[in-house]
Amino acid sequence: MTDNTTKTNTADDAEAAGKGAKAVPSRRSILGWGGAGLALGAAAAGGTAVALRTGSDAQPAASGGDAVPFHGAHQAGISTPVQDRLHFASFDVTTTDRAALVKLLQEWTEAARRMTAGHEVGDGAISDNGELPPDDTGEALGLKPSRLTLTFGVGPTLFEKDGKDRFGLKSRRPQALIDLPAFKGDNLDAARSGGDLCVQACADDPQVAVHAIRNLARIGMGRVAIRWSQLGFGKTSSTTPDAQTPRNMMGFKDGTRNIAGTETDRLDKHVWVSEKDGPAWMTGGSYLVARRIRMHIETWDRTSLAEQEDVFGRDKAEGAPTGKQREHDEPLLKAMKPDAHVRLAHPDSNNGVTILRRGYSFTDGTDGLGRLDAGLFFIAYQRDVRDGFVPLQKNLAHHDALNEYIQHVGSAVFAVPPGVRDKGDWWGKALFA
Amino acid sequence: MTDNTTKTNTADDAEAAGKGAKAVPSRRSILGWGGAGLALGAAAAGGTAVALRTGSDAQPAASGGDAVPFHGAHQAGISTPVQDRLHFASFDVTTTDRAALVKLLQEWTEAARRMTAGHEVGDGAISDNGELPPDDTGEALGLKPSRLTLTFGVGPTLFEKDGKDRFGLKSRRPQALIDLPAFKGDNLDAARSGGDLCVQACADDPQVAVHAIRNLARIGMGRVAIRWSQLGFGKTSSTTPDAQTPRNMMGFKDGTRNIAGTETDRLDKHVWVSEKDGPAWMTGGSYLVARRIRMHIETWDRTSLAEQEDVFGRDKAEGAPTGKQREHDEPLLKAMKPDAHVRLAHPDSNNGVTILRRGYSFTDGTDGLGRLDAGLFFIAYQRDVRDGFVPLQKNLAHHDALNEYIQHVGSAVFAVPPGVRDKGDWWGKALFA
Repeated sequence: MTDNTTKTNTADDAEAAGKGAKAVPSRRSILGWGGAGLALGAAAAGGTAVALRTGSDAQPAASGGDAVPFHGAHQAGISTPVQDRLHFASFDVTTTDRAALVKLLQEWTEAARRMTAGHEVGDGAISDNGELPPDDTGEALGLKPSRLTLTFGVGPTLFEKDGKDRFGLKSRRPQALIDLPAFKGDNLDAARSGGDLCVQACADDPQVAVHAIRNLARIGMGRVAIRWSQLGFGKTSSTTPDAQTPRNMMGFKDGTRNIAGTETDRLDKHVWVSEKDGPAWMTGGSYLVARRIRMHIETWDRTSLAEQEDVFGRDKAEGAPTGKQREHDEPLLKAMKPDAHVRLAHPDSNNGVTILRRGYSFTDGTDGLGRLDAGLFFIAYQRDVRDGFVPLQKNLAHHDALNEYIQHVGSAVFAVPPGVRDKGDWWGKALFA
Repeated sequence: MTDNTTKTNTADDAEAAGKGAKAVPSRRSILGWGGAGLALGAAAAGGTAVALRTGSDAQPAASGGDAVPFHGAHQAGISTPVQDRLHFASFDVTTTDRAALVKLLQEWTEAARRMTAGHEVGDGAISDNGELPPDDTGEALGLKPSRLTLTFGVGPTLFEKDGKDRFGLKSRRPQALIDLPAFKGDNLDAARSGGDLCVQACADDPQVAVHAIRNLARIGMGRVAIRWSQLGFGKTSSTTPDAQTPRNMMGFKDGTRNIAGTETDRLDKHVWVSEKDGPAWMTGGSYLVARRIRMHIETWDRTSLAEQEDVFGRDKAEGAPTGKQREHDEPLLKAMKPDAHVRLAHPDSNNGVTILRRGYSFTDGTDGLGRLDAGLFFIAYQRDVRDGFVPLQKNLAHHDALNEYIQHVGSAVFAVPPGVRDKGDWWGKALFA
């Protein structure tokens, strides 16, 4: 198994769709589906792209592309090229029954396998037994797979909560999965923080991401409940010319020097948990930190351009580091103010600390004071939170000039297991083994 | 002047960008902009597409397309083909000075003219005087125009509030701009209802829509304050195969028989205010009703397919009316249950009442009870609210089977003036004349 990367239809897709002779209407086939039974004419061949054919007249599906493989050594949605939209959900486990939780994770995995391949949940897509609720809620029917990825994590409270070993997992908690310390300036809302489980849904179409989370929540009814969720946008790959770094809600380019999904050496060094890191069930996994960072938009908008550029350590129009000409020029840290954001966040100011950032902008309407409730939903992946986000944020929380214009209002940390290897595998299988 | 429709670069664009010899960096030109002054090499020719050239080396801009003309007999964003994303904002006017309000509307119009053409706000785009805040907040730099439309309206409270004629406009209030009556089942949140002014921003990129509202709010500081705002998605023209009707959050196709922007006869009959309707300042305008409709998603998802299809009067997979085969087959109303939504909302059940719907799905995270805060942000345009939304909603509120699964939680009504005719015109000019 290799890393997950975007590609068009694969044997995996056909395999996930095929399930022997059972007919499976899919998002891509529904256009040609008259409600009658289907004959699946797809042939699977290792590594070869296949056209999924559906309908009695065996028309090719409207569009075959844009599914990200679900199976792999690592979960998709981390090193995968960033999609345009996010729906992130944190769940509380409401059942106390370990077997019920395991069954849920198996059902979730099967649903995730189908949805990321562009299919609806359940064998019948929309149930052909009208007396039952449909297997799938239906709002993504007819939409493309849209590079949907679903990335699963487990929070500290799954292992232990209020001193209680809830599911016999306490001894399996990774040392790296610490409870995040309080940082200077934090103003955390408990209702937007923490969680026993998380699922990060990313897709180029918001309706596809929202559909996925909504169906997982539906499947989980009585066993889990959504604790909080967050929609995000702003990675605009479908609308931004290639090689443009997206801008955050402060108007600055963000993520210029991020780890690319193709940099396997940096991923191995900074993102993926290695065998020697332990525990074994986390090998190939990563740790996710999510922070809801509210921006004081109205204050920022009244700040001079010179001050804004000093705060970031970048020129606003081009995105070049202070004193340089182009965005990708090597930054000269000492040319920046000592409290400039780029300078303080740079690995050279943090003993080499490097994290993979995958955040999205958000705008959640307006607060009670007529101010936009907008900012950055920061997501970072790292090999060990203690060597990644924690020392970095300690540094930033104390010194960053940006702190005058932002506030961290939500926080969560999750262990993200390795990828689901094959159809017999499921989210958390090694953890519960 | 004719109706606004989507097209690529036009003389209007070049005109808006040109302003004599003044150099204007644009979203489309910033890639080639090194911070130095620009020579604008575009030539404008009536009706002919022109390439906007920028930079000292006169490179063509990265992408020319996808601007919707701002000037026209009607405002864009009504009969314009629906874009993928919405940011709708309602404003309270905080100044009591009529001249200050007029000046704001002039500034807003100029900013809207620029942003819809794909340019930043202000002559300098990002101010070249570092001691001042930038003219534009910058987060849309490098993005395409994305078919941005900005549609402006005035609410009943602008004319009269608490018995007070605030701006000398009381006598100019259209009779058609009524305060909406209370409807059965309404559960309206005052913080999500009403407003003195509104701007509907629609674009194919959410960052472009959010940027526009945010900059209008910024320009309005001290004169207006956002009362509430709503983000929406779901018209997925960029991701849905042509001719597919989008699905709402209940998984059903929505808007099958809507008025198309090309149906000028139906637009004239049902949407545009005519000269004989009066008042004169509204000729060519329309009336907008916005309703935030929360869906009880979790209850709906536990409802059988047969019940869901009975409630709508449609088949879920194909979208065909009850008893028919294809989505666009003529509905046979009496084949549906008497309380089916499609039957009750049909013009034949409402003495011919027809409205132009332009709603968007929304998902605003989770409420305090772990349920998705999701639904439909309903927007309708009509020639007279008293002959449009009011009788229709009275009928639906009393009889619609869908009421078991939805609740109206926000409401507003606005008079939408005709289009801005030319560069000397501005939002509301005829109203204040």
